[in-house]
Amino acid sequence: METIQLHTKSRPSTVLCGAGALSEAKSFLQGKECFVVTDSNVLRLYADTISQTFPGASVCAVPAGERHKNRCSLFAILDAMLDARLHRSSVVVALGGGVVGDMAGLAAALYMRGTRLVQVPTTLLAQVDSSVGGKTAVDYRGVKNVIGAFYQPERVFCDPLFFRTLPPREIRCGLGEIVKTGVLDPAVGDMIKENKGSLRDLSFLQQLAAACVRFKARVVEEDETERSGLRKCLNLGHTTGHALELMYGRRSHGEYVLIGMWLESHIAEREGVCTPAYAREVRSMIALALPRIPAFPGAAGALRYALLDKKNEGQGTVSMILPKERGAYAELALPADRYAAYLALLEDPCR
Amino acid sequence: METIQLHTKSRPSTVLCGAGALSEAKSFLQGKECFVVTDSNVLRLYADTISQTFPGASVCAVPAGERHKNRCSLFAILDAMLDARLHRSSVVVALGGGVVGDMAGLAAALYMRGTRLVQVPTTLLAQVDSSVGGKTAVDYRGVKNVIGAFYQPERVFCDPLFFRTLPPREIRCGLGEIVKTGVLDPAVGDMIKENKGSLRDLSFLQQLAAACVRFKARVVEEDETERSGLRKCLNLGHTTGHALELMYGRRSHGEYVLIGMWLESHIAEREGVCTPAYAREVRSMIALALPRIPAFPGAAGALRYALLDKKNEGQGTVSMILPKERGAYAELALPADRYAAYLALLEDPCR
Repeated sequence: METIQLHTKSRPSTVLCGAGALSEAKSFLQGKECFVVTDSNVLRLYADTISQTFPGASVCAVPAGERHKNRCSLFAILDAMLDARLHRSSVVVALGGGVVGDMAGLAAALYMRGTRLVQVPTTLLAQVDSSVGGKTAVDYRGVKNVIGAFYQPERVFCDPLFFRTLPPREIRCGLGEIVKTGVLDPAVGDMIKENKGSLRDLSFLQQLAAACVRFKARVVEEDETERSGLRKCLNLGHTTGHALELMYGRRSHGEYVLIGMWLESHIAEREGVCTPAYAREVRSMIALALPRIPAFPGAAGALRYALLDKKNEGQGTVSMILPKERGAYAELALPADRYAAYLALLEDPCR
Repeated sequence: METIQLHTKSRPSTVLCGAGALSEAKSFLQGKECFVVTDSNVLRLYADTISQTFPGASVCAVPAGERHKNRCSLFAILDAMLDARLHRSSVVVALGGGVVGDMAGLAAALYMRGTRLVQVPTTLLAQVDSSVGGKTAVDYRGVKNVIGAFYQPERVFCDPLFFRTLPPREIRCGLGEIVKTGVLDPAVGDMIKENKGSLRDLSFLQQLAAACVRFKARVVEEDETERSGLRKCLNLGHTTGHALELMYGRRSHGEYVLIGMWLESHIAEREGVCTPAYAREVRSMIALALPRIPAFPGAAGALRYALLDKKNEGQGTVSMILPKERGAYAELALPADRYAAYLALLEDPCR
């Protein structure tokens, strides 16, 4: 098991990765008043695990799925917290994937101006990315994560025991953020390229997950609230990915990040941000997780959603993070019409 | 004009107190995208001032009054922010009393995980207390401030020009928090006692307000998120005050703080936390702002609301801050029935 410390300004955060992490969670929470937030899928699979690990805890299960990451679910959690008469020193345990972690984290941030918070991520995506770093949010009025807060969990327990029940779609989803980290961090990138054949191997994924958390921890320590600019790098692939996700739905977040990175590697190449050779290198890494980029009829229409993105500061421009060279990235704001023209590449990506 | 710095961990905050503060706000915000949140009363009185001070700003007015400090108003503000297409570097200007400041502050904390925030408090209460220190919240399901966040404003501009339109009730309300500060901080206490006759004089109130902000700034710097315990002292009078406010309504927050302090001085005396002489001294300071404590029939029923208070950590006890001696206070948790017996004193406070 590996311990990774985040020395963040607001509140330090400790991540435990590896087999046995859930037992550590049990020890850490023993004797504390716990309130477990999970979703209907996780509860169905892990009801016994939950009651054995957190005996006596209240359990609140929200409906599973990205489309339930909204105001209604957030207030359902807050209502259950009030009903359970939680106080400020109670511990909210977010046990689930990214959606559960984001919403339970926000509820913990808001309830009485902040209760204690522990994350127990159950998906690959949540273990490599969303449970670490304190971003919490819900979607609102068609805008991703527009209502949220930065709120560090005291502890994150990443146990691979949950991987065995993940459907292939969820593994692919996690690979999206892993490949993104591989593009940003050469150490992770090399791990991926040197172990192409093991990208569906659960024990290798666990090592990769820990490597991704190490990278993210350093980024978040430097720029906890995404002000200095460094943390923005984690949004690689997300400008286009989020816009497509809002317009088309259906596929997983991680797949959209891969598709977004694919398009943005073309943008980087054509805008002269990176060399054609490096753009091809990025696309070959994307192909390891997603061999074929699907076609999106009418993709230019996703411009509307891209313009709503939090990263845009100017009127009528779309900001994005682009790959520049090994271990480096650049931020670029494109005029809306120019970005829409690039989006149209997704109508026939095999061309 | 006086400048008071809060070197808070999350984000430094600067308070400007005195005539001319609003002009400083105008200079500070020139050229920035501003979004003014106010209420229907303030807008009626100051529409011209607002449009001259913040030309081109979007203005969002929520209905006036404590009972509108709720989820519905919060989302009305967030909706207007989305409609105005604010981005993270836009500045939310909370221009109004405590209710506006609390709600606009929370909306600023949540929108895109935090926009810029400036407070322009217009009431005495907001200038001496609520605009400073970063507490934001709405009431929910009958619990005061149960959904909120700590979010420091970059700047607070306290201009006494707004005092001239304050009704006597609002002056009394501000005096509640001023007297509370006087009990906690001997410097402010002496200012009050030495100028008994000037407690309705607007220019003296402006000096008192700055003194209160100086005291609060030191407390908030030490314990921004009310963890170490120091900041809890600011809740003097609030356990009982909030409970009565929830049960009876009608009177202002500051008056309830005075009434709460009155009862809690009796509790402090009878529980041996302070001497009878010091309790009388506290009550004589309360009398300067509120000469007669009103009777509350059925006051013991307020126990129900007191039990919901955020400060309570144990089951079935009510926690409160009590005056101990000059410049000192103590925290006490009373069993519910014992606290209810004290509440009954309010049924006939002249006895």
